[in-house]
Amino acid sequence: MSSRKPTIPKGTRDFLPGEMSRREYIFSIIRRVFRSYGYQPIETPAMENLSTLLGKYGEEGDKLLFRILNSGNFLENVPGPVGPGNDVSSVASAISEKGLRYDLTVPFARFVVQHQHEVLFPFKRYQIQPVWRADRPQKGRYREFFQCDVDAIGSNSLIYEVELVQIADRIFSELGIETVIRINNRKILAGVAETIRQPDKLTEITTAIDKLEKAGLENVMGELLSSGISEASIGLLKPFIRLEGKIKEKISFLEEFMQNSVIGKKGIEETRYVLEYLKGLDLKAKFEFDVRLARGLNYYTGIIIEIMAKDVGIGSICGGGRYDDLTGIFGLPGVSGVGISFGADRIYDVMQEKNLFPANLASATAILFVNFGLKEEKYCQAIAERLRGLDIPAEIYPEAAKVKKQLEYASRKSIPYVAIIGEEEMKKGMIMLKNMATGEQSELTEADVIKTVTSIQ
Amino acid sequence: MSSRKPTIPKGTRDFLPGEMSRREYIFSIIRRVFRSYGYQPIETPAMENLSTLLGKYGEEGDKLLFRILNSGNFLENVPGPVGPGNDVSSVASAISEKGLRYDLTVPFARFVVQHQHEVLFPFKRYQIQPVWRADRPQKGRYREFFQCDVDAIGSNSLIYEVELVQIADRIFSELGIETVIRINNRKILAGVAETIRQPDKLTEITTAIDKLEKAGLENVMGELLSSGISEASIGLLKPFIRLEGKIKEKISFLEEFMQNSVIGKKGIEETRYVLEYLKGLDLKAKFEFDVRLARGLNYYTGIIIEIMAKDVGIGSICGGGRYDDLTGIFGLPGVSGVGISFGADRIYDVMQEKNLFPANLASATAILFVNFGLKEEKYCQAIAERLRGLDIPAEIYPEAAKVKKQLEYASRKSIPYVAIIGEEEMKKGMIMLKNMATGEQSELTEADVIKTVTSIQ
Repeated sequence: MSSRKPTIPKGTRDFLPGEMSRREYIFSIIRRVFRSYGYQPIETPAMENLSTLLGKYGEEGDKLLFRILNSGNFLENVPGPVGPGNDVSSVASAISEKGLRYDLTVPFARFVVQHQHEVLFPFKRYQIQPVWRADRPQKGRYREFFQCDVDAIGSNSLIYEVELVQIADRIFSELGIETVIRINNRKILAGVAETIRQPDKLTEITTAIDKLEKAGLENVMGELLSSGISEASIGLLKPFIRLEGKIKEKISFLEEFMQNSVIGKKGIEETRYVLEYLKGLDLKAKFEFDVRLARGLNYYTGIIIEIMAKDVGIGSICGGGRYDDLTGIFGLPGVSGVGISFGADRIYDVMQEKNLFPANLASATAILFVNFGLKEEKYCQAIAERLRGLDIPAEIYPEAAKVKKQLEYASRKSIPYVAIIGEEEMKKGMIMLKNMATGEQSELTEADVIKTVTSIQ
Repeated sequence: MSSRKPTIPKGTRDFLPGEMSRREYIFSIIRRVFRSYGYQPIETPAMENLSTLLGKYGEEGDKLLFRILNSGNFLENVPGPVGPGNDVSSVASAISEKGLRYDLTVPFARFVVQHQHEVLFPFKRYQIQPVWRADRPQKGRYREFFQCDVDAIGSNSLIYEVELVQIADRIFSELGIETVIRINNRKILAGVAETIRQPDKLTEITTAIDKLEKAGLENVMGELLSSGISEASIGLLKPFIRLEGKIKEKISFLEEFMQNSVIGKKGIEETRYVLEYLKGLDLKAKFEFDVRLARGLNYYTGIIIEIMAKDVGIGSICGGGRYDDLTGIFGLPGVSGVGISFGADRIYDVMQEKNLFPANLASATAILFVNFGLKEEKYCQAIAERLRGLDIPAEIYPEAAKVKKQLEYASRKSIPYVAIIGEEEMKKGMIMLKNMATGEQSELTEADVIKTVTSIQ
């Protein structure tokens, strides 16, 4: 029974009603658009077996997993006495076999393999759930945050690349966020690695190139050298790294540059197909063919996509790509998929910064009935119940407090209308309705109250 | 890279699209009704500090908490070498300081204290989130399950007891579940303990009485004796334990029985007030005043409520009560509240057993466009985009597969309409629409397709 003020773990958050309604606004648009393209929801458990999670996010990722202590006598599998000096990761494996999910992609791959005979391919699913990472908390980065993933798996068709961009474009234009959509293709990067005769250094090359904007050309060169790429190869790479120009110009350059790489040419072909398709669709976003876009995750094998909000320094708010063998790690090879993930927290921050949330989200209740005592309360109950039946959220103040206090409650909860029904109104069968914004009062019938209150919902 | 078929931790579940749409159906009704009474949503993090959770659910509950292993070198606070022989709980405290929430009530109390200056009292909140318990998994009992809690805190008014029963009644009647609502009052039980001169044995008495239905009178007597209650007191208790009859008869008996207990008489008064109030409200449920209803949790101090589905042996599907000092444990005494919790999983099971889900929930997509190749695909894209803009979920099959295969996809996904647009239809600007239920095909304009497809949504 401690009496100091309670707190929550660092990097986690409570959501108050105001934040909830703004978050719900984002989620409801995302969900509706996902559904309008035929994607269906699934959910997976917060806890996964560590055998599912470990090794999927690199060494760094393994360290960021939240592990669950085994229940019961968790010490029973510890081989001998252990203390502060022991190797943490081997002790961890002995005392925990479950972890909190780190993203929605790996659980989705696990789901597809586990339920391969229950789902229909191509399987179009979406999933909106929290994920957990033991990252160092900082502004805009949390240890519990929400991802909204949408994937189509079980088909090679590029129509899904196009569709996912359509989906993102529709969502962001409904939210009012202007975006830049950057597109590249992992096959192009693989072709570049081949072309500069370093096909086995694809990861190092993409990792280094990915830092170009932040670190500058010099540092990228340095990193490439120190990761064992020869000066000759770096020399060959330079014109690619410096590539600028229109989409057509970039494609011409690449066709010339990678003329001997089969995979590179395939990458150009796919990218051109998708970009031309998108051009014909009259989308709102601005498109960029960004040959240096790499995206950290190594399971991507085709088109990769990254979406930023225009004029907001918040980083990417959506991203994804095609993966040809994500389910292979769980024993189901050869199932190609493509997916993108929306970062709900960053989208929220962009909406706040640009003031894009509608003004009337906050109020949950449409009308408050003033309470003058039990007789009036019961009279109001019946009216309130009828309004609720018409989907008009209605409250009765819980006790016969001073009217001023009751009005203050309405005002602080942003309730737009207050019904004042005393002895006299009951006799007449009328309702005195106060508009909280203007302060005006008028005596109305129940039908007119319904009309008035509904009109602003 | 293991290739054996992946699994999920025991007691947890994946939700496939069909289950998701049925669950969403339940949640959306619950949410809408909560809102219609002016309750607002909040969310709290999955992880809470163990200092928040420990000691709130009894010794048994502490053992059922899922603990999170500290990140980084979690061994650094272990005092000396530990092994299989060591005391598990002291080691656990040294290596974990966070746990997964066990219910929504304690996090809510923590929330109210932490945000006491940001929320408006009386604070009417609802919360729909998963909770985790390391219970032994069994049929209908999971280690991750969803609770839907609704509470009004910061007022003593019994109008909230009434309102919560109204809410439950409306939710269950919208879901089509016939219910029995059992009501009692902790003050009555306290009055009984006083009356039989065992005021400090309230917990033991309620725990024993609670088992009456399952264990029978003899065993209850035995348990009372062995928990140190004298034979004389048990003798006094007998007429209470055996009490049957109409509400009025029970109240008369209690008034006589507890005439010397102030708290007991207060309990009768509250219960009578609420029962009479409810009687005037024309609710669907059947009411019972069950003087033996105890509910396990010790924080209840007033009215307690338990709701069962009629004719289904699934146990309670909703329950709750008034607590006068839940926030006291976190340093904010004297804040009274009342709340109930809906068990989403049990409600789901009742709905399945009684076949109460609407038939048309499964299908997400309203219309599938057959794909005859890139030219037709792009032509269909434009139509599909217009339909989606009208909130008609539309899909295009991803490739020009055999029509039979495409129709099979529609059929297996329960898509009610298929649009077939080949060379000829494109020329005429018409759409061949196939009704998948009847097999009928008709050539329609886009406007007529919209009308037809919308009519069944």
